[in-house]
Amino acid sequence: MPTPIDFYFDFSSPYGYIASTQIDALGAKHGRAVTWRPFLLGAVFKVSEARPLTQLPPIKSNYFVHDFPRSARMFGISYKMPAAFPFLAVQASRAYYWLADRDAAKATAFAKAVYHAAFGEGRDVAPAEAVADIGAGLGIDRAATLAAVNEAAVKDRLRVEVDEAIKRGVFGSPFIFVDGEGFWGADRLPHVERWLATGGW
Amino acid sequence: MPTPIDFYFDFSSPYGYIASTQIDALGAKHGRAVTWRPFLLGAVFKVSEARPLTQLPPIKSNYFVHDFPRSARMFGISYKMPAAFPFLAVQASRAYYWLADRDAAKATAFAKAVYHAAFGEGRDVAPAEAVADIGAGLGIDRAATLAAVNEAAVKDRLRVEVDEAIKRGVFGSPFIFVDGEGFWGADRLPHVERWLATGGW
Repeated sequence: MPTPIDFYFDFSSPYGYIASTQIDALGAKHGRAVTWRPFLLGAVFKVSEARPLTQLPPIKSNYFVHDFPRSARMFGISYKMPAAFPFLAVQASRAYYWLADRDAAKATAFAKAVYHAAFGEGRDVAPAEAVADIGAGLGIDRAATLAAVNEAAVKDRLRVEVDEAIKRGVFGSPFIFVDGEGFWGADRLPHVERWLATGGW
Repeated sequence: MPTPIDFYFDFSSPYGYIASTQIDALGAKHGRAVTWRPFLLGAVFKVSEARPLTQLPPIKSNYFVHDFPRSARMFGISYKMPAAFPFLAVQASRAYYWLADRDAAKATAFAKAVYHAAFGEGRDVAPAEAVADIGAGLGIDRAATLAAVNEAAVKDRLRVEVDEAIKRGVFGSPFIFVDGEGFWGADRLPHVERWLATGGW
């Protein structure tokens, strides 16, 4: 079996959302599984000295606010900016890893549902309650999710993932690895596809 | 005649170089002329509070140093990082506008020659003498170029272009406008192409 694609993303990242709607199909086309790996941009930004795109000077932030929905439309997906943005995705990310260690397919479905709620519908997915509601829609016990996101082991699991992401050079979302080769940004999906098709250049 | 594509770039921008090798063919495919518009990232960075990509924290700069040649190879073009980077492209930019007001086709040929010297061959194109040498290779009088880059009118011409770029929201290189719609980055060439083909979405 070829190595899975590592798909790093923050649930609060618009371009992560866009890439999330494409990455599984892209992997499947080239016989690759995709490992979804949420991380926290807030932790990474301390290392990269970066800021959320909407908190940059107006000449840049205005562009991104225009480009988020424009890029989404190009891929034919719905886009609605959440009222609170950026938001802290720590609860959703913990819930994801708790699920991933039990049922990887369900965890990926959950990640897609979180992204769709946040950027497809503009809902607030930051609170643990909102995360548990999204899980409930996939048949995951609400109380179990609420308990899981407060477990020390689950908190540690996310922390280790974030540290590992930084060690691997992840500084933005999405960040995609194919056989150790890293690509930053939804704009790089054509590069990722070419790498998958050719084995690199 | 449809509106020309506005192609904004800094001669010191690796991704501007990459886009410069594609933009004329992209325009021609869709019946569009391309207006080449060098500007100075240094001036723009004061507004956008940004820094050259190689002067960012290592987690980011390491990525870009790896990605510049990788992206160039994807397009099948040569890439050699200039020893002095970033460099001040003010002389080349002045020479460009001086030429552009006299012979637009020659000015574009000159811009391509500057970019090829800088990033295809890694030569130092910052000094006026280097710029004049590149012009001489295209049959442009060396002494005339050296005189032009010191003319007040030519200096003003570049200043006005840089101000205009900032007014239009240009904050990085390359930055491409199609019918008033702006796209940032060489990665956005597929978006630009889609916009040209469909008239927007």
